[in-house]
Order: sequence, then C-alpha cells, then structure tokens
Amino acid sequence: MKFPVYLSSTLLVLTSYGAFGSDSTPGSSHGIAYPTGWQNWAAIAVSHRTDNNTIRAILGNDKAVKAARSGKTNPWPNGAILGKVVWKDTELEDWKAATAPGQFVHAEFMFKDSNKYADTYNWGWARWVGLDQKPFENGAQVCTTCHTPVKDRDWVFTDPAVFP
Amino acid sequence: MKFPVYLSSTLLVLTSYGAFGSDSTPGSSHGIAYPTGWQNWAAIAVSHRTDNNTIRAILGNDKAVKAARSGKTNPWPNGAILGKVVWKDTELEDWKAATAPGQFVHAEFMFKDSNKYADTYNWGWARWVGLDQKPFENGAQVCTTCHTPVKDRDWVFTDPAVFP
Repeated sequence: MKFPVYLSSTLLVLTSYGAFGSDSTPGSSHGIAYPTGWQNWAAIAVSHRTDNNTIRAILGNDKAVKAARSGKTNPWPNGAILGKVVWKDTELEDWKAATAPGQFVHAEFMFKDSNKYADTYNWGWARWVGLDQKPFENGAQVCTTCHTPVKDRDWVFTDPAVFP
Repeated sequence: MKFPVYLSSTLLVLTSYGAFGSDSTPGSSHGIAYPTGWQNWAAIAVSHRTDNNTIRAILGNDKAVKAARSGKTNPWPNGAILGKVVWKDTELEDWKAATAPGQFVHAEFMFKDSNKYADTYNWGWARWVGLDQKPFENGAQVCTTCHTPVKDRDWVFTDPAVFP
C-alpha cells in the first residue's frame, strides 16, 4: 500500500521548504533571479538592530564565504552573493536576558558583478519579502540610499565575523 | 621563480583556516572529537544576550538542520549536532543602532546520541575556547546545569528560526 508513504513524503517536503513550496521558485526582484538554496548557505556574521527591533543572519554563497574568511572583501569578488535574513527580535522564553528570531521579515541579497551591475555600484540588489517570498520591486535605489554610508567599504555594512 | 607563489598560497591557507592552522585539529573536549567543518554549517538561529553582551550564531550539521526546518526537535534525532558560535557584542561603526560580532569567544556543541550519551541526558556536551580552540574540560555538568531550565525541550534553548 504505497499511498500513505507517498503522502507522508509530500508533507515533509512542503514543511521543509516553507510556505512557497518546493515546486514554485519565487519570481525575480529587480530583474534578478531568486538565489535558490540560500537557506543552507554558511554564516558570514550576525547582527542585531535596536532601531527596528530585528535580528539578522548574514549568509553567503561559497564565493562570498571564502572571500569573507580570507579578508578579501574590499572589493568583494565577482560572483559573491551576500544574503541578509531578517527576523523580528523577540525575547527568549527560557532565558529572559536573551533575544532570538521571531516573525520572519524578509531576505535581501547583494549580487556582486562589476560588469552586469556597473550602474548600481557593481552590485545587484534584490529582496524577497515574507514567508511567501514576494519579490521587492521598489527599485535598487531604496537599497543603495541606505547603503551609502558604506560606499567606501564596497557598499557592505557587514564586517565578516572572525571564525577560528 | 616559484617561491613567491608558494609563499602566497601558504599565507592564504593560514588566513582561511584561522589561528589553529589547517593541519592541526584541536583535541577532544569531554572525550568528544572536534566537529571538523562546522564553520560552514547552515544556520538554525541567531541570538543576542544582554546579560553577558554576546551575539551568537546557532549552526547545525545536516541532520540537525533538516530536523530544525521540519519541526522535529523534541526530541532532536540521533546524529544531530548543534553548534553555538559566540562573539562579544560590539557596536557597528557605520550603523550605531546595530551590534555585530566582535572578539570571538568560543564555539560549543551538543551531540545527540541517546545510546552514547545516555548519562548526560542523551547529549554529548563539548566546547572549544578562543581562536586557538582550546578544549574545555571542566565537565559536562557545567553545561547541563545551565541548560536545566529547558530539560523539557530536549535540553535545547534554541527555537529554530523560521525560514521561507
């Protein structure tokens, strides 16, 4: 009787890959394709913002992680992709002096390509909002305006965390 | 002239793999072998502690990440390894309302194995301190005492972050 096995596998896949499902890749943001598989990228840093009460993981594709771990980040190499995963900051129930990820807000990405994205400071800027990963289409200038204070750091706020 | 090329490659390797070098795996902690490669594990959550001013990434091996993303965490499956990477919390220079990783403190791990570690609540407890990853040998009870408030959550503080 194969049906229950099949059903159980399907449910597991749906759960594992979140609300947008395993068979529907979100559409592009600012013309940039969704970076499938980012959920399993390695960490480059973490951060905590008190101005909007969010807590973040900064992840990278292989090229970005290698650059981060070897200090080659100004400029970041072509092909590097940085992902910032943002959650609302919430108090940890079992340790009141700690905060941890609550509601998922969005995942936003910088794609380094000095040829393709020469018009936007050598980075492609994209964001997918909410658990349904709705593409953000309000324009890259929304991103670059906020990142202007770090234009001399190749437009990146993140200092890669020191790993042993 | 091959010498400069050779020298440059050696420096890159030393930089990439941190202070303990690429050829010297740290010794065991509480009899548990060092989980080589954890630096590139995927993220399960992040956290921020105001009582000791640290910021953390909670990483997992493949088995732990799969369990976390599918909500199968009470109990966590045998073979899951959770890693907590701890840095001092520091103000981000270019965004004063943000904090990010400063000095690296330690990396600590929980190894789930209900056979091997039945005497310590089905987990092996280990920690490697500082950039030289010195094994912590003060006893698992240091770990379990602190984790007692979450004994009904399979001894784990972390709520896996929601990923889309």
